[in-house]
Amino acid sequence: MTRTLITETISKIGEIVLIKGWVNTRRDHGKIVFIDVRDRTGLLQVVLSPELAGNLHSEDVVYVTGEIQARPEKLINPKLATGTVEMSCEKVELIAKAAELPFDMGKENLDLELPTLLDHRSLTMRHPKIQAIFKVQAVIIDAFRKALQAKDFLEFQAPCITPAVAEGGAEVFKVKYFEHEAYLSQSPQLYKSLLVGDFERVFSVNKVFRAEPSVTTRHLTEVVSLDAEFGFIESWEEVQDMEEYVVRFIFAEVANKCQRELKMFNATLPKLSDKIPVIKLRDAQEIIFKRTGRDIRQEKDLDPEGEREICKWSLEQHDSDLVFISHFLTKKKPFYVFPDPADPTYAYSVDLIGRGVEWSSGGQRLNNYEQILENAKEWGVKAEDIEMYLQSFRYGVPPLGGFALGAERMTMHILGLKNIRESTMFPRDMERIDVSLRKNNTAITG
Amino acid sequence: MTRTLITETISKIGEIVLIKGWVNTRRDHGKIVFIDVRDRTGLLQVVLSPELAGNLHSEDVVYVTGEIQARPEKLINPKLATGTVEMSCEKVELIAKAAELPFDMGKENLDLELPTLLDHRSLTMRHPKIQAIFKVQAVIIDAFRKALQAKDFLEFQAPCITPAVAEGGAEVFKVKYFEHEAYLSQSPQLYKSLLVGDFERVFSVNKVFRAEPSVTTRHLTEVVSLDAEFGFIESWEEVQDMEEYVVRFIFAEVANKCQRELKMFNATLPKLSDKIPVIKLRDAQEIIFKRTGRDIRQEKDLDPEGEREICKWSLEQHDSDLVFISHFLTKKKPFYVFPDPADPTYAYSVDLIGRGVEWSSGGQRLNNYEQILENAKEWGVKAEDIEMYLQSFRYGVPPLGGFALGAERMTMHILGLKNIRESTMFPRDMERIDVSLRKNNTAITG
Repeated sequence: MTRTLITETISKIGEIVLIKGWVNTRRDHGKIVFIDVRDRTGLLQVVLSPELAGNLHSEDVVYVTGEIQARPEKLINPKLATGTVEMSCEKVELIAKAAELPFDMGKENLDLELPTLLDHRSLTMRHPKIQAIFKVQAVIIDAFRKALQAKDFLEFQAPCITPAVAEGGAEVFKVKYFEHEAYLSQSPQLYKSLLVGDFERVFSVNKVFRAEPSVTTRHLTEVVSLDAEFGFIESWEEVQDMEEYVVRFIFAEVANKCQRELKMFNATLPKLSDKIPVIKLRDAQEIIFKRTGRDIRQEKDLDPEGEREICKWSLEQHDSDLVFISHFLTKKKPFYVFPDPADPTYAYSVDLIGRGVEWSSGGQRLNNYEQILENAKEWGVKAEDIEMYLQSFRYGVPPLGGFALGAERMTMHILGLKNIRESTMFPRDMERIDVSLRKNNTAITG
Repeated sequence: MTRTLITETISKIGEIVLIKGWVNTRRDHGKIVFIDVRDRTGLLQVVLSPELAGNLHSEDVVYVTGEIQARPEKLINPKLATGTVEMSCEKVELIAKAAELPFDMGKENLDLELPTLLDHRSLTMRHPKIQAIFKVQAVIIDAFRKALQAKDFLEFQAPCITPAVAEGGAEVFKVKYFEHEAYLSQSPQLYKSLLVGDFERVFSVNKVFRAEPSVTTRHLTEVVSLDAEFGFIESWEEVQDMEEYVVRFIFAEVANKCQRELKMFNATLPKLSDKIPVIKLRDAQEIIFKRTGRDIRQEKDLDPEGEREICKWSLEQHDSDLVFISHFLTKKKPFYVFPDPADPTYAYSVDLIGRGVEWSSGGQRLNNYEQILENAKEWGVKAEDIEMYLQSFRYGVPPLGGFALGAERMTMHILGLKNIRESTMFPRDMERIDVSLRKNNTAITG
């Protein structure tokens, strides 16, 4: 008999079908046992005798055959997509026996401490609410690609292994590369920029690595970066416009495909009005000072409190959960940043802030070869460390810009998760690669 | 004036338009100069006076304004998509000046030695024929995803940093991970398998790393792996069927979107008949022996010559450029391989061979927890090194299998490239990360 997926059972009343999945929960009521069977499409209530149920328990893999029956009106479960039907079981085949669970997986919310959640990642990802996170994430990433493909961007695969640390930073992982030393990429910036000289418009979904020696709720050592870069721009505002288009496209796809998942988290997509407001860093700091009396007007960036405050302002004044902050200090940005000709102290760089935190950074980049060389020197970047990048500009690259969005951060802030570790399947941080490094020290270094 | 893309000019005869791009080539004919301008859509011939042309040369970035005119019948260039038109130039704006080129980029074929091609990667990727490679590659990768999304597979992001070397092998890159040692992933196998316990069907486009201490035409240290894994399979043949579906889907997409690119390489997609033939390793070796007298019947694998011979056989006997080889020796495969119950010496593992080389490997995997533990022990794999993987199977995973296709290899063998380095933008090998490591030794290790 061919497998019937669980969501298909609602249209099979009166038919004998075979379903395959996991025992999600079991309830014993004397001479009747109820098990909810779970597959990738949903849950189905199966009614069976204690004999047939045997010692089945949660997470056993089973093939179950039986008749699909309409539930009596008053037993309809409106919370379940298959709540109008149940299966009267005729045969159960045990395919893989599960060990006793370390905690209850049958609750609507998995109320676990974060280390427990992550130590049991293989198991906890079976919970519908955890699965929802990664369905939303897959939609976000796919929407990013679709948005840019529609604008004629070419997808490329950014390298992970890089020959040098071009943008400075102690926070880089070293790789023993035969008799050489290499590094894990902190950003595909130089690659995507040089590729504008070849393909005009490129994007990549790639890994970036930061050896951040601290444990926070917003940082991981390995994250998914959604990168785009394009040439022949008329103005730095064109970069924002493209980013806004991409973000709106992603929200539309999530709204379209993830209503059920959003509902599970009581999440609503960030509010957007006609256009995402853009405000210069110094103006943002002034606004924060006026609204709160807190003076960060001389700082090079917004601090977390400032980011939250400017988002409040944006929502109140512009009806927008997202806001662009532009014109950061040129000297605090990488060597390729494009200074505003009106006041070169500040640059055409722009961050996207949403719901109180940074979602992305981007801006216009230098494309004049001599100016790039000069800046590299001034910034202390060695020409031999950025040879392939310089080569592109030596042979002519048009005005360009781009941006990078963090896939985990977007997932986190769309769903309202508290810790970025929740929005990655296998979070890596200073203390964890799958399992805790402290616990498994010998296994890891041995 | 808004930019007109070059392919759009064919429908703009009589109009004054602005095009933006690079000077591809320049031909001086006394009082008339011809330049071909290139943008991401194609080439356009621009006719201009020596005064307007100034000292423009190849790769200068220019904005050119002029009238689009029909070419006289006898001057139509059938090789060019815009061969029916040209621009009579009125204004040229130089946006970025290019250095003198180290070689001629205007020829139909870039006849460069491989090191020269790669040393100048930023520049050589501007050549239409090199660009074609990466357009085909982007289509292959996108088609892989689309094929699996259509079958309800969830996309996941496989980690690059791994806590241990689970499958053995000296050919692994070490990462200094704070005070620990970590490794670059050789395969997402354990992650995709464990995720079958959560999502049933998963795929990923991910980087894998091999510290191969040799320089060959088929190996790189960082490659793009197209991975799929799924559960509730009825038989090991189902894995092949899914792979065949994916490969056919990819070929169809390439045929549909890359006719121009295939033509540039005189390439035809691999021939497929109704079904890709499947042959056991021992039978393949027997066939090779019968056809050539070369006896490799006791070997654990096909050697390169054997792979070529079995592909010849497949084409002759089955009209298929692709052939599956199954039933490799269990003991020569990783610990999770599924032994054929009829003869456990051989396993339900299957390689896809195409045009004389391996394109992928896959097969059914063990899903029984006790058997996995036993095998891990027998294979010398430490349980603590595969903790997250074991966890999944401890709690019940259905029968499963999967496969991995190499994106660069597919690109290479579809287009008939000679060296795998040609089918990756930024090839990394023992002697190169962007630039030669021998040359730049001090910069790299400094």
